[in-house]
Amino acid sequence: TTYNVVLLPGDGIGPEVISEAQKVLELVSKKSADFDIKLTPYHFGGAGIDAAGKPLPDDTLAACKAADAILFGAVGGPKWGFGKVRPEQGLLSLRKELDLYANIRPALFPSESLLGHSPLKPEIAKGTEFIVVRELVKGLYFGDRKEADLDTPGSEGDAYDTMVYNKNDVQRITRLAAHLALQQNPPAKIHSIDKANVLATSRLWRRVVQETIDTEFKGLEVDHSLVDSVAMTMVSNPRKLNGIILTENMFGDILSDESSVIPGSLGLLPSASLSGVPDGKTRCNGLYEPIHGSAPDIAGQGIANPVGTILSAAMLLRYSLCQPKAAEAIEAAVRKVLDSQDVGGHGLRTADLGGKVSTSEIGAKIVEELEKL
Amino acid sequence: TTYNVVLLPGDGIGPEVISEAQKVLELVSKKSADFDIKLTPYHFGGAGIDAAGKPLPDDTLAACKAADAILFGAVGGPKWGFGKVRPEQGLLSLRKELDLYANIRPALFPSESLLGHSPLKPEIAKGTEFIVVRELVKGLYFGDRKEADLDTPGSEGDAYDTMVYNKNDVQRITRLAAHLALQQNPPAKIHSIDKANVLATSRLWRRVVQETIDTEFKGLEVDHSLVDSVAMTMVSNPRKLNGIILTENMFGDILSDESSVIPGSLGLLPSASLSGVPDGKTRCNGLYEPIHGSAPDIAGQGIANPVGTILSAAMLLRYSLCQPKAAEAIEAAVRKVLDSQDVGGHGLRTADLGGKVSTSEIGAKIVEELEKL
Ligand SMILES: CC(C)[C@H](C(=O)O)[C@@H](O)C(=O)O
Ligand SMILES: CC(C)[C@H](C(=O)O)[C@@H](O)C(=O)O
Repeated sequence: TTYNVVLLPGDGIGPEVISEAQKVLELVSKKSADFDIKLTPYHFGGAGIDAAGKPLPDDTLAACKAADAILFGAVGGPKWGFGKVRPEQGLLSLRKELDLYANIRPALFPSESLLGHSPLKPEIAKGTEFIVVRELVKGLYFGDRKEADLDTPGSEGDAYDTMVYNKNDVQRITRLAAHLALQQNPPAKIHSIDKANVLATSRLWRRVVQETIDTEFKGLEVDHSLVDSVAMTMVSNPRKLNGIILTENMFGDILSDESSVIPGSLGLLPSASLSGVPDGKTRCNGLYEPIHGSAPDIAGQGIANPVGTILSAAMLLRYSLCQPKAAEAIEAAVRKVLDSQDVGGHGLRTADLGGKVSTSEIGAKIVEELEKL
Repeated sequence: TTYNVVLLPGDGIGPEVISEAQKVLELVSKKSADFDIKLTPYHFGGAGIDAAGKPLPDDTLAACKAADAILFGAVGGPKWGFGKVRPEQGLLSLRKELDLYANIRPALFPSESLLGHSPLKPEIAKGTEFIVVRELVKGLYFGDRKEADLDTPGSEGDAYDTMVYNKNDVQRITRLAAHLALQQNPPAKIHSIDKANVLATSRLWRRVVQETIDTEFKGLEVDHSLVDSVAMTMVSNPRKLNGIILTENMFGDILSDESSVIPGSLGLLPSASLSGVPDGKTRCNGLYEPIHGSAPDIAGQGIANPVGTILSAAMLLRYSLCQPKAAEAIEAAVRKVLDSQDVGGHGLRTADLGGKVSTSEIGAKIVEELEKL
């Protein structure tokens, strides 16, 4: 089999980190007897605007639709600003066009040696290991909205946005979360987050999550909490959230970002946005990206941390190509490179973690470790 | 002058903490040559449901409307559950009926001696000192909504909530934030938070905040950030947010709760919800309450921390009664009681801070210190 993977390097440090993940995927392809991975780059984001006048050019969209999976770097930068055509619009369109309804963001330490880098006290941060599952194509992001008219004299300047969900929207993301829970041993607990004491969409959410688990996934544990309370727990006692955090689009945007500072650097963390259900057997298209942005301030210097992108490539292998062994091998190689020397690792650190090791040195060392596995 | 202050002890630990704040306000009244404070308790929340069948009984509402200010404990508990008539509804109605459009939540250490209680590393938490100003009567909380129909076979079960703002809504909360900024010396910086890359209401918010400051408060500094990014900064580098955080209702609910774990116990922190503009000269009605809930698990044991409620009484004196000196005296007395002995304080700690001192012992000690000032 040959798997077609689209590369979207994008803007800023995007191309630098994608290039390291590319080497990792090429090695995986070379080492595997069963499959090949074909990698093809396309323009996207600011690079799409420059090349084709829009952030998601037609040939990029067509390639993404046809692909088995997409590996994406980052978009945006001062060059394109906040104008009418903005790099981020490409990302929102791609989510909608490919129906990437589930965003998956693990919050965990890729190596225990990084514990000291957390802004939380080590005894609070230690053992944090949850996955945020965020609904990605409904809610406030894609409901009806009205822009305020602030220029007509006498206008009240009223604006609105609409948070919309229906039963099916909540069912499918719940099923996906349940599959992820079942892939852990013992099955992970699901923490569903809403604001059911205020919002109608949250009352729908709470009831459908519970009913879907009760009828289709008997035996899985699920609890329900309010978003404001979880925003506290995530800082005061994040281990309490271990398992799967399941939430709607806007709450997920906020909570997944909040959680991502726990491991000490945004440069470390991967993400996946999926269409389909990752049950371990069915391949589903997906967009994989590090959670950090385009970081224009350090672009071109070769100092960005490629670990988030390389771990995104591991998620790509796991969820879109159904190659869990290859995914685990990458994760093990990353751990070895990050583990400090007293536990047998290399203890390499890029600038975001206070070190001096370059993007390509980290990439090369991960490739070297992966060769041995 | 006699100021009429309504007391709403509410449920759970509410009556216990209100009773300590009451002693403090009675002492302030007794010590002052210029004014008296008359304190009158009314039913509210679960206690309102029990006494009059609804969480906000008519006489309570009438008294609150006529009052100079309201001091509130907490509502809710297992007894009233999640039924049709819920204690929290009383709170939402009171906000709307009194047009309490501005929620003010300081995030700071009431005593530096508490630094070690933060879940953040001391070097990260130290010096955190910001005030969250949250719009409280618009947005997703009070827009049109539709409940899902999940019981009619064949129904799609669609639900929505609407986030609504107009120009005037944003102007008035911006003015209030600006007045708070001007009360600091040098004037505080305003950090306005939105999600302008996605929401129409946020684009309105961003533009009106900037224009209101530019035209009415020249010289005040304001910057704009995205809510997801601020959720990270609040944990990784909270000092960067020092000043005034200005945001809409739902984002404010989440961010103010996130910030409240920084000082190490929810029991320490006060809040105010205001109608009118606290410019230091005009009295405005307001509802003052500790940020903790009714904590049914520890109710009746006399171990709750009354500091959040006592500091709420200080905010009441500052914003509704325009008595800043009395407010500062209370804050100084609280600091003395919390400061550790090596810096000349009493170092008293309730159970939430790992101590054994009771609710009434803390209250009595604060009264004793206040007597001396
Ligand atoms: C760029 C922005 C529209 C996007 C979002 O809010 O979804 C980003 O914050 C994310 O989480 O991927
Ligand atoms: C009880 C609830 C409706 C309320 C809110 O969300 O506003 C509470 O969380 C608060 O922040 O005061």
